[in-house]
Amino acid sequence: MNIQQLQAASQAVRDNKAFELFVVAIIIISALLIGAKTYSIPDPLMVVLNWLDTGITVIFLIEIVIRFMAAPEKKRFFHNGWNLFDTLVVVISLIPVDHSDMALIGRLVRIFRVLRMVSIIPELRMLLNSLLRALPQLGYVLLLMFIIYYIYAAIGTTFFEPINDVLWGDISISMLTLFRVMTFEDWTDVMYETMAVYPLSWIFYLSFIFLTTFAFLNMVIGIVVNVLEDEHAQEKAEQDAADGKATLDDLAAEIRELKALLQQQQPPKS
Amino acid sequence: MNIQQLQAASQAVRDNKAFELFVVAIIIISALLIGAKTYSIPDPLMVVLNWLDTGITVIFLIEIVIRFMAAPEKKRFFHNGWNLFDTLVVVISLIPVDHSDMALIGRLVRIFRVLRMVSIIPELRMLLNSLLRALPQLGYVLLLMFIIYYIYAAIGTTFFEPINDVLWGDISISMLTLFRVMTFEDWTDVMYETMAVYPLSWIFYLSFIFLTTFAFLNMVIGIVVNVLEDEHAQEKAEQDAADGKATLDDLAAEIRELKALLQQQQPPKS
Amino acid sequence: MNIQQLQAASQAVRDNKAFELFVVAIIIISALLIGAKTYSIPDPLMVVLNWLDTGITVIFLIEIVIRFMAAPEKKRFFHNGWNLFDTLVVVISLIPVDHSDMALIGRLVRIFRVLRMVSIIPELRMLLNSLLRALPQLGYVLLLMFIIYYIYAAIGTTFFEPINDVLWGDISISMLTLFRVMTFEDWTDVMYETMAVYPLSWIFYLSFIFLTTFAFLNMVIGIVVNVLEDEHAQEKAEQDAADGKATLDDLAAEIRELKALLQQQQPPKS
Amino acid sequence: MNIQQLQAASQAVRDNKAFELFVVAIIIISALLIGAKTYSIPDPLMVVLNWLDTGITVIFLIEIVIRFMAAPEKKRFFHNGWNLFDTLVVVISLIPVDHSDMALIGRLVRIFRVLRMVSIIPELRMLLNSLLRALPQLGYVLLLMFIIYYIYAAIGTTFFEPINDVLWGDISISMLTLFRVMTFEDWTDVMYETMAVYPLSWIFYLSFIFLTTFAFLNMVIGIVVNVLEDEHAQEKAEQDAADGKATLDDLAAEIRELKALLQQQQPPKS
Repeated sequence: MNIQQLQAASQAVRDNKAFELFVVAIIIISALLIGAKTYSIPDPLMVVLNWLDTGITVIFLIEIVIRFMAAPEKKRFFHNGWNLFDTLVVVISLIPVDHSDMALIGRLVRIFRVLRMVSIIPELRMLLNSLLRALPQLGYVLLLMFIIYYIYAAIGTTFFEPINDVLWGDISISMLTLFRVMTFEDWTDVMYETMAVYPLSWIFYLSFIFLTTFAFLNMVIGIVVNVLEDEHAQEKAEQDAADGKATLDDLAAEIRELKALLQQQQPPKS
Repeated sequence: MNIQQLQAASQAVRDNKAFELFVVAIIIISALLIGAKTYSIPDPLMVVLNWLDTGITVIFLIEIVIRFMAAPEKKRFFHNGWNLFDTLVVVISLIPVDHSDMALIGRLVRIFRVLRMVSIIPELRMLLNSLLRALPQLGYVLLLMFIIYYIYAAIGTTFFEPINDVLWGDISISMLTLFRVMTFEDWTDVMYETMAVYPLSWIFYLSFIFLTTFAFLNMVIGIVVNVLEDEHAQEKAEQDAADGKATLDDLAAEIRELKALLQQQQPPKS
Repeated sequence: MNIQQLQAASQAVRDNKAFELFVVAIIIISALLIGAKTYSIPDPLMVVLNWLDTGITVIFLIEIVIRFMAAPEKKRFFHNGWNLFDTLVVVISLIPVDHSDMALIGRLVRIFRVLRMVSIIPELRMLLNSLLRALPQLGYVLLLMFIIYYIYAAIGTTFFEPINDVLWGDISISMLTLFRVMTFEDWTDVMYETMAVYPLSWIFYLSFIFLTTFAFLNMVIGIVVNVLEDEHAQEKAEQDAADGKATLDDLAAEIRELKALLQQQQPPKS
Repeated sequence: MNIQQLQAASQAVRDNKAFELFVVAIIIISALLIGAKTYSIPDPLMVVLNWLDTGITVIFLIEIVIRFMAAPEKKRFFHNGWNLFDTLVVVISLIPVDHSDMALIGRLVRIFRVLRMVSIIPELRMLLNSLLRALPQLGYVLLLMFIIYYIYAAIGTTFFEPINDVLWGDISISMLTLFRVMTFEDWTDVMYETMAVYPLSWIFYLSFIFLTTFAFLNMVIGIVVNVLEDEHAQEKAEQDAADGKATLDDLAAEIRELKALLQQQQPPKS
């Protein structure tokens, strides 16, 4: 059996619907296994679960090998981020989990196997891609928010550090405290404490809350509405084209034809 | 009196406006009764309330029978989800409420009678239907959110279980704790506790909050705006059609007529 | 001086810009007075403030009389809700504030004078009117939300009353507790308490939170986006009309003219 | 070297890409410096940081001088708000920071240097400008919200001052308490306290929460959607123009040409 036959066979397996469903089922079992292990389990059952775990790792390894075999160009296989992710998760799972420090990494990698669900269901992959695509366009809003946080944290540390070292000890602790204020989590306790020393410090908190909630809402609504409107406009254009609806350009073309007809028809000026 | 006469009579009663208002009134009384029973009531009044309750059950039974009689095809009557719901609620109410375990079920069923308000007022039924119709289109977002929760809960249980068994004991408790963090309910207490052991665990909470609030807002705004835009576009199209406004297709048709006229008019090439 | 002359003079005063600004200034002073009285004030100053208060009441009375005089039809004057409101606020202010029970009403009415700001600034009046106009269209959503609250409160009282009488004592207390849960205010304390008895009661809280926040967001976003889109479409139509932009109807009319020209031009079929 | 040569040289430096990147780098170092100083630092390192700080001040001074030199009209230089801001921040940084009261101002000004990031990155400047431009259009909503706060605070102080002096002492304290209620921060504690005396005071809180969250959401969503739609419409118009798509006005022009052709062609009525 030569390599080309192997590739064709791999492709047949990979594109098989039953194979895909089987892999999804294995991922779900793998997720349930992770959940089950967080409960306190009698030892005999634990042995079974560990055997199951090994089985899943082997199946995942076989699946990745099949998909690698099926790829027409081996080099480009790892250019796809999802393929790289799948391979890494499987390979690191192979490292034996002893009672060493590696045990923790092994457990974590097993958890990330659940993310394979996203890599295998196209709709989820599209959803995540669309979220990621929206990220760069909000880079500057995030930068602006970071600058606001940084300035308020610097001011907060300057004034409030002597009042409460735990909340305003240094600039990173202050930024965490400000995030807490932004989520309205016991923020009045933080405020009343500093107002006892600086009675006007409510201006600090109120202006911060307004700036950040406004910027955050701005960002989130902006992205969502933008993405939605683009999708909507695209769908509508496709729908109209499919329905054979007239567009302004169609009309313009028809009118131009009419003009040509008329000019042709024009009696010679004599 | 034969069956057909009975059906005609039932239909006459069912489609009577006064009958409909009477049923709405009975549902409201039924709701008030449920509310009244939660207060501590003197025994003589309780007897009256129980008699009222029996009366309402009987009236509901009669109403369902009339609507069943009025239905042209008896089999299709129960294909309608609302009819099935109404019948079940009435039938279970008939079971006598003793001091047995059934008493609780009887009380619960009486509460669900309030939902009959939705089944009888068309505007509410439409509202609920539109909400339900939006549900499938957000199935994948919900799935993605569940995967995010599951992964964070698995990581949380792995690391934080030794710190606080009540909050991070197993994967389902961890998911509930994460929901609490997402609602900003004393989430800093949860965070400060784990930061005492893992100083970098704020990354865990902040990334989780960003991912989930973003996904949630995305979902809600997405659905609402989508539904609104669809309704809006539909209304506008209907309005324009009703106003006799020209559409692009109308224009295209008229231009095509013009062309036909011109071509017909064309002098024979001789 | 006859009545018509009086009416003309009143109208002249009422439509005077300086008079309007004077009234706004008096309203602002009245608002500041209300604020000032909440601080502990030395007695001599209090006497001054009380004199000021009487002065404002007199000025308001004169203003209302002038506006009533200026009205062409006296009967229709009170058909306007704002006029009625202004008159009531002024008339009730006239009742002397003794150390009786009326004192409280007198103070409250003085507070509502601040609302006269809304009645006198046209932009604020428009804003409030647009909010009020949006209200009926969300009546059914509010009704649906009330039904959800009622059912959950009835279930909550049925199950949780023995656990905590203060939070789940009767149906109205339960509805208040549910509102608290909806605002995420220490809702986990409420939940953990009932989960100790009914471990599955988290389903009750989570489903309630999802239903109500979804319905609330739906309602708010729906109204805002609706109102905005209507305004936007109207503005755009007005703008296009002002710019003399061609509409589809204009085009249709022109094409119809063209056709008429062509048909007229058609050589007689002979 | 005369003044014109100096101006030309300054412009060359100012418009140099490398110079711009250098200034951004200095601003970032300046920001890091501010952050670093909030940590407890050994004395020798502190000396280095202070030297760095002086260096940054000098570089900023030189940069401002270059930009001032490069400006064609010296008077108009300070008409630009950003230039004024940059100059002020640099000039105040020059004041020596002793152990006097000025030390605090010096530290604060150094913090505001981080805002120079906004003044130098055009995208951030645009973002902030667009936020500021949206502000006036929401002035009336803010005024309405302030009136709502003022009235509720006045009522709250009137009734609740004897109950809790710390929360409802005077009108400004009451407004702060109401802001706290609006953010749902332990608002039930505030409510339960007054409900013990006035059992119906929940109406006060619930109506306030509904009015203010509704007004706030209205405001934020309104601004964001408005700004987005304007941008969207503009982009679309530009895109269509660039793609050479037909507009309704183009069609109208073409049809008018057609009509002219036809009328010209019309055989003389004889």
